[in-house]
Formats: sequence, structure tokens, C-alpha cells
Amino acid sequence: MPEPDGERAGPVLVVGVGLLGTSVGLALTRAGRDVRLLDPHPEHVRTASGLGAGRAAKDGDPEPALVVVACPPDALGGVIAEQLLAHPDAVVTDVGSVKTAPLAALASRVDRAAGARYVGSHPMAGSERSGPLAASATLFEGRPWAVTPHGGSAPDAVAAVVDLAETCGAVTVTMSPGEHDLAVARTSHLPHLMAVLVAGRLADAPRDQLALSGQGVRDVTRVAGGDPSLWQQIVGANAPAVADLLREVRTDLDGLIGAVESGAPLAPVLDRGVAGVRAIPGKHGGPPAETSLVVVAVPDHPGELARLFADAGEIGVNIEDVRIDHDPGRPVGRVELTVTAAHAVVLRHALGERGWETQR
Amino acid sequence: MPEPDGERAGPVLVVGVGLLGTSVGLALTRAGRDVRLLDPHPEHVRTASGLGAGRAAKDGDPEPALVVVACPPDALGGVIAEQLLAHPDAVVTDVGSVKTAPLAALASRVDRAAGARYVGSHPMAGSERSGPLAASATLFEGRPWAVTPHGGSAPDAVAAVVDLAETCGAVTVTMSPGEHDLAVARTSHLPHLMAVLVAGRLADAPRDQLALSGQGVRDVTRVAGGDPSLWQQIVGANAPAVADLLREVRTDLDGLIGAVESGAPLAPVLDRGVAGVRAIPGKHGGPPAETSLVVVAVPDHPGELARLFADAGEIGVNIEDVRIDHDPGRPVGRVELTVTAAHAVVLRHALGERGWETQR
Repeated sequence: MPEPDGERAGPVLVVGVGLLGTSVGLALTRAGRDVRLLDPHPEHVRTASGLGAGRAAKDGDPEPALVVVACPPDALGGVIAEQLLAHPDAVVTDVGSVKTAPLAALASRVDRAAGARYVGSHPMAGSERSGPLAASATLFEGRPWAVTPHGGSAPDAVAAVVDLAETCGAVTVTMSPGEHDLAVARTSHLPHLMAVLVAGRLADAPRDQLALSGQGVRDVTRVAGGDPSLWQQIVGANAPAVADLLREVRTDLDGLIGAVESGAPLAPVLDRGVAGVRAIPGKHGGPPAETSLVVVAVPDHPGELARLFADAGEIGVNIEDVRIDHDPGRPVGRVELTVTAAHAVVLRHALGERGWETQR
Repeated sequence: MPEPDGERAGPVLVVGVGLLGTSVGLALTRAGRDVRLLDPHPEHVRTASGLGAGRAAKDGDPEPALVVVACPPDALGGVIAEQLLAHPDAVVTDVGSVKTAPLAALASRVDRAAGARYVGSHPMAGSERSGPLAASATLFEGRPWAVTPHGGSAPDAVAAVVDLAETCGAVTVTMSPGEHDLAVARTSHLPHLMAVLVAGRLADAPRDQLALSGQGVRDVTRVAGGDPSLWQQIVGANAPAVADLLREVRTDLDGLIGAVESGAPLAPVLDRGVAGVRAIPGKHGGPPAETSLVVVAVPDHPGELARLFADAGEIGVNIEDVRIDHDPGRPVGRVELTVTAAHAVVLRHALGERGWETQR
């Protein structure tokens, strides 16, 4: 195996050029790495290559120092093994959503020495969109990226995968494959399936009822629009952990149904929900930042939003997030600017002085 | 009862100046209406009045033509009855989240003639924030606002409440109180409680697991941060409809647990989730608009976002929505602009010409 520095400078082979594989290719190409692309669908390789994610892999390419496997979950174990055997000096990683099942599939296919060159990983940057056209070099910027060495992973292989994640702009979180799968069962797979159940009740609904849909139900159900065949594989590969959590939720749901039917207090369950929302760390893993909303009424013309941001820029306040809510048919929209709590008063005052109607 | 035109021009009394009552006061004051404010907490009236939502109600005020009751759900029936009796010429409405329970409470307290002046209503514009300081004159802009006449509501009273909603900028949806309660059980109360159950599983979680929280779980659980005492009252007042849906979800959940445990296909339930997400009408009740995302890398300085929006404004493309994702510690953020599908290609090309890195 070459030295880590050699690996980091060496060519990278991306196997599977969907949303994640293409985004990795774009980010690495931007960072000056030599990226080759492989996919069973040549048209995907053409698309990804056309976007600037790298060149199509071909016979006679230089040996890759790093292989990034970004194929569907069910194929991971087999493809990782193939790549370890095909490239006996390369570090191999994957970006799949589940980590123990592919590792188990690998155990019977490669020896210990080859297995030492494999380190799993998982960027937390999926989307309900898919395919190379949805890819972006900035997809991973500031996102958590789990790096999941197994007991036999070589330290320099781990370093190469951490380097990959950091080159893509992500923030690495190192944990074991088992810890990872328990974590994503709770923070990703369970929320997904619960959103699916809520959305399922909408599929049944009389159309008139759906006219009352507000922002809440849109947020709760958004992820349920994700690709069913992908989610079948993800949940299938993490079935025991997901089933455990689903059974815990069923116990809670039984209690909730009993309380609603009998008129018993809901405070214990509602309070625990509030505590759960507050337990989610701030974006990118930091402590939850103290932010405030500044709400501005903005006339619905192309130039007005520009004027608002120009004014905010002159005021010197950095905007953490924006939500625009307007009806194309109406003259005024509502723009919510999220800024640090300390900046909110300044921004509200200074926008008011510039003639913007804020908050009231 | 005066003529509708007279009512529309007459004074309005807002009873209860939390988020919704204060926002109604702000919107009506902006529209030139004479608004008086009443609340058991004088400090809330002072705050709402200071924000410009109207004047504190006092003895000797002119008789209101319209009373808007915006108090907590449990108090609605009693307060609506009080107001119908105190103002024998006024139309009375409320903005509560549930419509049949207050109507039933009203039946034993006022006669048929007084009841004819009551028409329930419900703007779909809540928030996980509460209180007069969270209020905004634009809160209702383009939002659905249910108007729920009962069998004995007078037509001119219905017209006055429709006029209220339209003056606040909302889009009215007329339905019976019973239809309304079934609709919000499905589109609001069920999603809320399911978000609470997901968030409850986070409250239990080892902190390390939460480091992998992505945008999905944040979206699914956001509403679960709402005020528990308010949600206790809302769910309590709509218990039969909510319990029916919770039992339907339990049946689905049992099936899902069985499928996950046995490795059976999840496609039926996942596909129904996709259908449910697609069934939600576009913002403001129109058909879902065809929109596309344009993703732009933006340096993390106050002026850069302004420059981006200035360029978008010059290009002449209207931005439907924005999401900013950046880590305060990193030099480049990711800005997702939602525009109509027809505008996406134009915007991407023109931003590229101006030196912005879009999408890849």
C-alpha cells in the first residue's frame, strides 16, 4: 500500500455515478484530483463526465489510489470486494447509507489483508432527488460525513477516507459500523418511515381536505417523496435496528391513542417531543446557535429581493437562512431571514430605516 | 344586523392577542380598519398595541361590527357566547384550530338568533412560535383560511368573515365545521403527533447518534417543537377524528413492522407515501407548480448574497424560494434557489456568465 500522501495525490475511481458519486467526482475534480468514472449505465457516465465530474474509466488507466463505491445498497458488498481485488494497492470506501451489512457481505469474499484497505463512510447529504443531474460539487459542504472503520481497517486507509470527506468540504464523524447503523436508524430511517405513514394518510384523503395543507404537513412529509426502491434497500439492510425503533414507536403510539381516547393528559408525550427537537445539534454538529427570525414584506418583483439582500449586506449582517413564502398571484411576499439573535435587533431597525416593513 | 357593507367598514374587536389575534389586528389596521384589542393579560394588549395592531378596548368604545375571537381552544365556546351576548349587532368569528367543539359548547349558551351571527374560521398559518411578538401583518398572505358556517349562520355573517380573511390577504376555503375538523385531523393534527413520536425517539438517543442528524429529520420533527399546552387543547377538542387516524396509522405501522422483520417488500407502503406527497396541492391551493432548483456556491461574506440576488434580479428571474446551507466557520456556503422550471436553465446559464459556480 503506498504512503497516505501518495494516496491523496493519486487517481480516484468513482464506481456508480448517481447523485452521490457524481457529486464526489465534481468536488474532487474541483480540488485538482484526477477522477475516473465507472457505471453500468454508460449514459450516466457521459452525463457525469459532461458535468465535469471526471473522465470515463477505460483499460490502461493508471491504478487508482482510492476507489469510492457509490452504487445501490444491495450491490455494495459485491462491488466493494470486486474493487479490492481489482486494485490491490487501492484504499476502497463506499458512501452507502448502511454500514454493517456490506461489511458482512465482504467478509466471505476477501481476505484480511484486502479487507484492511476497506473503510466504510457515509455523507449525510442525500436528497429526495436522485441521478447525476441532481449532483453538485457543494453537496457535502459543511455536512456531517460518517467514517466507519472496522476492527481490521488500516490506519492509513482511514486517513485516506477522512481526507476524501474533508476534500469534499464535509465534517467527519468517526464511529464503528454498528454505531453508525443504530444512529441512522434513529435519525434517518425511522423519520423517513414515519413520514411515509403520514403521507399515506394523505394519499387516501378526499381532495377537499388537502386544501387545508399548511407548511407543517409539507415539512413532515417531504422526505417521503424519496425513491421507493432505494429506501427498500436501505431499510432492508438495516432491518433489525429499524424494527426495534418501530416497535418502540408502536408502544408510544398505543399510549397516545389511549390518552386521546380517554382524554388523559398528553403533556408527557408532547413535552418529550419538544425535548427531542431541542436535542438535535445545530447545523454541522455545533451546539444549537441562538438565532432569531426577521420577517420582511417584499413586493413580488425580481428586483426587490436583490434590494433587500443589498440592504442587508450594507448593514453588515450575515444571513444564516432564508425562507420565502409568496403566491405568484399576489403583490407582496413574506421573507423570513434567520440571523443570530444578536444581529436581529440591528437588522430589524436598519431595514426599517431603509423603508422595509419588518415583522409587523 | 347591519348590511354587509356597513359591517365591513365598522370597528373590529380582537379578543385574545397572541400570534394570531395580533397578526389579525396588524393586517386589519394596515387595511385602514379601526381595531380594538382585548386580552386577560394587559401586558399582551400593551405589546400588541405597541406593535400597531390596534388600540386597547375600553368602556365607551363604539360597538364593533365584527368580533374576532383568538383565544386558546378550551375557552372558545364560552368567549364566543359572551361576545355574541355583549354585542347584539356584531358578527362573531374565531380563528381556532377546531370547529365543532366550540360550536357544540355555544349551542347551550345562546339562542338561534344570536347563533346566526356566529361563523367559525381558521387561518392555516400557525407557527411553532407564539405570542404577540411573533405576529406579522403578512402572516396570512396567500395562506388558506377555512370559513366554516354552521346550518344556522346568516349569509351576511358569512360574507363578513370571508371579507375578514380576504382583507388579511388569505385565500378562503368554505366547508362545514365537521368537514373542517376531519381535514385538519389529517393535514395538521396527525402530522403533528407523528412528528412528536419521532422527536421522542431523539430525546432518548445517545448524543453521539444525533451528530448524524441531517435536513430530513429536522424537517420531519420541526412542528414537534410547538407549545404542548396549546396542542393538548387542539387534540383534545378533535379527539374522535384524531383517534380514528391514529388507529389507521397503527394498522399501517403493524404491517410495516411485519414487513421489515420478515424482509417482505416495502414498495406498497413506500409508493403510497410518494402518492401522498404528490397529492398535496401547490402552495396556496393551486396545482403543484413545476419548479427547479439552481444550486449556487456563495462565499460566506455579508455582501455576496446581495450580489447573487442583484444578479438574479438583473437576469429578471423571480425566485420562488431560497434555502441557504452554510457553516459559519467555512468560506463557502450552498444556496438553493427555487425557480420555475422554465427559468432554471436561463438562470443557471446567466449566473455562470457572471462568474457564479452553479450546480456542479
